[in-house]
Amino acid sequence: MGTMQDALRADIQRAIDSKTKPVGSLGRVEALAFQIASLQGTTTPQMRDCRLTIFAGDHGMASAGVSAFPQAVTRQMVLNFLEGGAAANVFANTLGVDVQVVDAGVAGEPLEDTKLVARRVAAGTKNAVVEPAMTDMQRDVALTAGQEIGANEKTDAVCYGEMGIGNTSSASLLVHKVLGLPLVPLIGRGTGVDDETLVRKTQLLEQAAKRTATQLDANTALAEYGGFEITMMVGAMLGAASVGKLIIVDGFIATAAAVTALQLNSDISANFVFGHRSKEVGHSLVLKAIDAEPLLDLELGLGEGTGALLAWPIVKSAAAMLNDMATFDSADISGPA
Amino acid sequence: MGTMQDALRADIQRAIDSKTKPVGSLGRVEALAFQIASLQGTTTPQMRDCRLTIFAGDHGMASAGVSAFPQAVTRQMVLNFLEGGAAANVFANTLGVDVQVVDAGVAGEPLEDTKLVARRVAAGTKNAVVEPAMTDMQRDVALTAGQEIGANEKTDAVCYGEMGIGNTSSASLLVHKVLGLPLVPLIGRGTGVDDETLVRKTQLLEQAAKRTATQLDANTALAEYGGFEITMMVGAMLGAASVGKLIIVDGFIATAAAVTALQLNSDISANFVFGHRSKEVGHSLVLKAIDAEPLLDLELGLGEGTGALLAWPIVKSAAAMLNDMATFDSADISGPA
Repeated sequence: MGTMQDALRADIQRAIDSKTKPVGSLGRVEALAFQIASLQGTTTPQMRDCRLTIFAGDHGMASAGVSAFPQAVTRQMVLNFLEGGAAANVFANTLGVDVQVVDAGVAGEPLEDTKLVARRVAAGTKNAVVEPAMTDMQRDVALTAGQEIGANEKTDAVCYGEMGIGNTSSASLLVHKVLGLPLVPLIGRGTGVDDETLVRKTQLLEQAAKRTATQLDANTALAEYGGFEITMMVGAMLGAASVGKLIIVDGFIATAAAVTALQLNSDISANFVFGHRSKEVGHSLVLKAIDAEPLLDLELGLGEGTGALLAWPIVKSAAAMLNDMATFDSADISGPA
Repeated sequence: MGTMQDALRADIQRAIDSKTKPVGSLGRVEALAFQIASLQGTTTPQMRDCRLTIFAGDHGMASAGVSAFPQAVTRQMVLNFLEGGAAANVFANTLGVDVQVVDAGVAGEPLEDTKLVARRVAAGTKNAVVEPAMTDMQRDVALTAGQEIGANEKTDAVCYGEMGIGNTSSASLLVHKVLGLPLVPLIGRGTGVDDETLVRKTQLLEQAAKRTATQLDANTALAEYGGFEITMMVGAMLGAASVGKLIIVDGFIATAAAVTALQLNSDISANFVFGHRSKEVGHSLVLKAIDAEPLLDLELGLGEGTGALLAWPIVKSAAAMLNDMATFDSADISGPA
C-alpha cells in the first residue's frame, strides 16, 4: 500500500462524497463504485459493456446418479444457448449483454456450430467418485484455454456462467478440498434432487472425498474433482483479472471457481464482485468463508450466469454515479446545515 | 376468485414451469413473473418500458429543524433533476428509463422551466408540529393532480420518487397514524442527522403526533402530516393502478405513500412491487407490517426513486422470461430423470 495508492483511494472517496447526495446514502452502490474506480485506477472508471461466457462440460459423476436431470441435458442446453432460448440468453438480451458459449468438454461427438467456441478437452470427465476427474495435462489444457479466453475479453465487465449436469457435486468437492470446509453442509439439491437422491449424492461425494488428502492445493483439487467447464472458468477468471477486468461472479459453482482462482493468485480479489446469493445451501457457506457479500439475494439456483447478469445493471449504475452525477459545487447545492 | 381467474393462474404457473430450467430455480424472478402476468391477465405480459416521476415538495416542519440539510436544497435538487445531474437521473439514463419532475409544492416562487410539470399546490406545507400540514382542499387538489398523472402513464411500469427536505418526518407520522405502528421506532436519520438532531426530531414528531387521534383514516392523515409530494404520489399510485400499471415502490417515503394508497383502495396491492429495502430504520418496520419483501437490499437511503430504478431491470427480465424463454418441448430438452 504505497502513498500513490493511498492518494488515489482518497481521491476516489472524495469524488464519491462530492456528488449531490448525503454522504453514504447510496450504500453498497458507493462501495461498488469505489471498488471499480480503485481497480481501474481512476476516479472516472469505464463500465460501458459486459459479456457473458457460458462454459459447458460433462461430469463422469453424473452417471453415478448425483443429479435430478440426465446427462444429455448438458448438450441439449448448449443447443438452447446457441438458439437463444435459455434464461441466460433472455436475461442477457434484456440487459444488453452479449453471450458466448464455450464447449469445454461436453459428452458425445463434438458439436458442430460456428457460434460455439470449441475448446473441448474431452467428451466429459471421468467419474470422480472412483478416480481423478481429469489428468494433470487435461487440467492444464483447460486452464490455458480459459486463460486465453479471459485475457482476450474486450468488455469492461465479464460474467462467467456454466452448464454441466452434476456440477454442484464437483463444486462442493472443490470448495471442501480447497478451503477445508466440512463437506456435507456444502452438498445441496442442485437442480432439485429429491430426498432419496440427496442421500445417495451425499454418500457418493463422501466416497469421492475420501480418495484424497483432507485438503488439496488448487491444481490438484481441479484435476481430482473439477469439471472441464469449472476448470476453464478458473482459467478465464485468472486471464480476465490479468487484463484488469471486473468479474461478476454467479452462484455456487462460479464461486467455487472464484475461490480456486484466488488460491492460484490471491492478488485478484479486487477483480471480483459477487453478483448474487444462490439458494444452493453451500453458496452461503463459501461466501461467508471468504467474507463476500453478494449484491442480490433472489433465491436463484439455476447457474448459467443468470444471477451475475441481474447484477450487471447495478455495476454499471455504480460507475455511472462517478462519471455522470453533479457535485455539490457544480450544481450549486447547499451542504448539511 | 372466480374460476376464470383460477384458470389463468394455473395457466401462468404452467407457462413458468414449462420453461427450460428446473422448476422454481429462478426463485423470486418467477414469483415476479407470476405477479406481472396475473396483473396483466396474460401468460405473455408486456414489460418494455418504465418511467420515473419525481414529486418535489417542501415541508413546514423543515423550519423546526428535523433535517440535516436546509430547506433550500429541495429547490436546488429540482434544478439538479432538470439538469440531469442527480443520482436518479444517472441511474435512469443508465437503465433506459425516462424521468419527469413534478413541482408538487416547492417553497418560494414558482420554478420556470418547460421541462418541469407544474402542479404546485402551495409554496410548501405548514408546520405539522403545530398545525395541519395542509387544508382538506389542498389535499384533494394534490390527490387529484397525482391521480391524473398516474392515469396518464404510458409505460408498462412506473417508478415514483420524491424530493422534499423533512419528508422522512412526514412519512414516519403518516405510517404511525395510518397503520397504527408505534412512532418512535419509525423515526430515523433521514439524510443523516446527528444524535442531537435525532433527539430533537423525535421530540418534535411526538409533539406533532399528539395533536391528533392515535390512528387516523388516510385522508385525514394526509392533511395533517402529508407533504404535497407524498400526497400527490398517493394519487399517482391510485391513478397508475387504475390503468393497470405495475408500480415499483422506492424506499421509506414511497412506501408510506403506498400504504396510504392501499388504505384508500385495498384492491391495488397486486400493482405494487417493492424495489428495495432502505437503510432508513422505519422502512423495514412498515415492510414487515404489510408483509412485503423488497427485491433489493443495497443499504440505500437517498430516495428520488433510486432504489426503484435499480429494481427495474429485474422486473423487465422477469417478464422477458415468460415471453422469450424456450420450453422443454420447444427446445426438445429432457425433463428430470
